[in-house]
Formats: sequence, C-alpha cells, structure tokens
Amino acid sequence: MSSSLTPAIDQLVRCLRYLPGVGAKSATRMALNLLERDQGRAADLAIAISDALTRVRRCSRCQNFCEADLCSICESPKRDDRVLCVVESPTDVLAIEQTSDYSGRYFVLMGHLSPIDGIGPEDIGVDKLKQLLQESAVSELILATNPTVEGEATAHFIAHIAKDLNIPVSRIAHGIPLGGELGMIDSGTLSHALQGRKPFA
Amino acid sequence: MSSSLTPAIDQLVRCLRYLPGVGAKSATRMALNLLERDQGRAADLAIAISDALTRVRRCSRCQNFCEADLCSICESPKRDDRVLCVVESPTDVLAIEQTSDYSGRYFVLMGHLSPIDGIGPEDIGVDKLKQLLQESAVSELILATNPTVEGEATAHFIAHIAKDLNIPVSRIAHGIPLGGELGMIDSGTLSHALQGRKPFA
Repeated sequence: MSSSLTPAIDQLVRCLRYLPGVGAKSATRMALNLLERDQGRAADLAIAISDALTRVRRCSRCQNFCEADLCSICESPKRDDRVLCVVESPTDVLAIEQTSDYSGRYFVLMGHLSPIDGIGPEDIGVDKLKQLLQESAVSELILATNPTVEGEATAHFIAHIAKDLNIPVSRIAHGIPLGGELGMIDSGTLSHALQGRKPFA
Repeated sequence: MSSSLTPAIDQLVRCLRYLPGVGAKSATRMALNLLERDQGRAADLAIAISDALTRVRRCSRCQNFCEADLCSICESPKRDDRVLCVVESPTDVLAIEQTSDYSGRYFVLMGHLSPIDGIGPEDIGVDKLKQLLQESAVSELILATNPTVEGEATAHFIAHIAKDLNIPVSRIAHGIPLGGELGMIDSGTLSHALQGRKPFA
C-alpha cells in the first residue's frame, strides 16, 4: 500500500481483510468508506462486533449460537424431539431453517474431524452429542455434514456411535442441484446422483 | 432472516451491511465467521474501527486523511509545490499515488457539488482550496474529479475560480482504458476518446 494511508487506516484495512471474501482492494475501499461517509455507522459496527462477542455463546444443549443458556430452537416446544440433525456450523442451521422443511432439533458440531489439524471428536463436541443421544428419545439421526472428505469422515464416525445406540441414521441426499446442468456438474456429484437414483413416481 | 440468529448477531449483520459491496448473504457469512472462528480477530476489528475513528482526521491543508495536523504528502519536502491535483476523495489520492507518476501536491474535496442534495462549494471545501490557490505558487491545477455529471460540474466550478486567479488548469484525460476493446466501451467514453485524440508520434 502507499504512503498516503495513515497507520490507523492501515491497521483497519488489515483487520477488515479477516472478513471472508474480502481482499486488499475491498478492505481499503471499506476502510476509506467507513471513515469518509459513515462515521456513525462505523462506530455502530465497532459496538455491534463487541456486543456480539460479549453476548453470543454456544447453546448448552446443541452448541448453536444463542444468548441465553438454550438457543431458540432447543427452547421451542413445537420442535420434534424424535429427529436430530447434525451439522458442522451455525451457518448450516440457518441454511436448513430457511427451507422451512425441517421441524426437528439440531446438534451443531464445532466444525469437523480433522486429525491432520489435531481436531478430534472431543474438540467438535461428539462426546456431548453421544450423551444427548443416550438421554433423549431420538428415532432418526440425520447427518448433514458437508460432502467433503472431512465431512464424510465425521458423518461415518457419528453413524458408528448412533448404530451402537440402535438409532437409525440417514444422510442428506447429494446430487444435481435444482437448475443445474448435467454438462456443468463435476463428475463426483454426477456419480453421487446416479448412485442415489430413485424410482420415478 | 430466520429465528436461529440471536438479536446480537442480527444487529452485527445489519451493521456489516453498511460496508460497500456487502449484501445480506455476505453479511451473515461474515458475522457467523467472526463469531465461529475468529473471535480474537473480531475483537481486533472492533478496536481497529474505534481507533481509526478516534485517530484519523482531515489534513488542515489538503483535507486528505491524516493523524497529525498535516498529512504525509503535505509534510513531504520532496513534493512539487507548483502542481496541485484536485480529487474528490482520499481513495482517489491512493489510486493516483499507486501509479507513482505524480509528484505534486493534492487537494481533497469532501465529495462533489450536488445542489440536489444541498451540497454547495463550502461543504466540500472549495473556499479552502481558493485560499490555498491564493496563498501558494501553483503553476498548474489538475482537475481529477470523476467523469460523472457532478464531477464535471465540480471541475467547471473550480476551473472558473482558478482562471480568475490566472492559474492554468488541466483535466485528466478520458478515453479507452488500456486493454479495453472498442466494441465493449460505452459510446460516451468513445466520444471522449475521439475528441481527445492526439497526433500519433
């Protein structure tokens, strides 16, 4: 960067680059924009970050984000206790909630198993999940971890635990996304879509 | 947004949307990312914003961002006092500095004239620029405001002042950007490029 930025702006640019999808150019644009036009909003943003860091914690039951002891989904009496969906992060809960198709409970892993990074079952809360499965009357465990190598490994690991407890396990379907074109889809996905074919109604 | 975000996260998402180029989806991703993975970095970002808001101010001479009374460019003895380049914002100074082609001084307007928004000459610091032109020995005033309606109007307004003070005025060239294809360029730019043609060396 050039000499015309001040040390405080340089530091702000560096910190903005932590945000996902923000490169050097966007970070500079954001920093100058905050200082030039939106000083009130910049102050609001600083407060909102600090506030969220202080107030947001993990639900003691499902590890989703919450501000009380339990998250809003765990607290809701309308949710079906018999179905539990395991996801890798709160973002995934949000994505599934936006479909409005799921009325069961969640368990949010703190990521996925990754032995190479030293991340084992306890680090992502698998022991807590096991305890939850032992204590509650779950009749279906849906594995909705990501279709990556680590996500699949995590799904297999949890499936073993559930099978030991005689809980039926399912995995969300992988295949061609709606609107997707076969010619544009990677062969891994296409292979999943073929293997996962269903009788045509 | 869904019920699974907490009030503090919702507020953080709202504030992140103030950033240029950040929509609802990116803001949610940024907020969850900050809380999930980068709590230390999130705290750093909050501090960096507050710090920048406290420490960064406008240079008393040229209105560029600085942390002392004068910005680093105004303070530098290596700069050519006879050339003054007028831009709309500190972002533009940064862009011109990155070319390394300019060694004169700058004057940073606080935006551009916009009567419809009630923004007159005093609001963007034209009176200050006039005083600077009267006091210093500027032999060329380069108008580098944006090639928009407001930018052009601002350039014309300042050109009149400079002409009254007998200071030669130039405007940066508008034309086909390097690597641009004529077929892809808007007709306004093409028309500028034709009118601004130069003898071929």
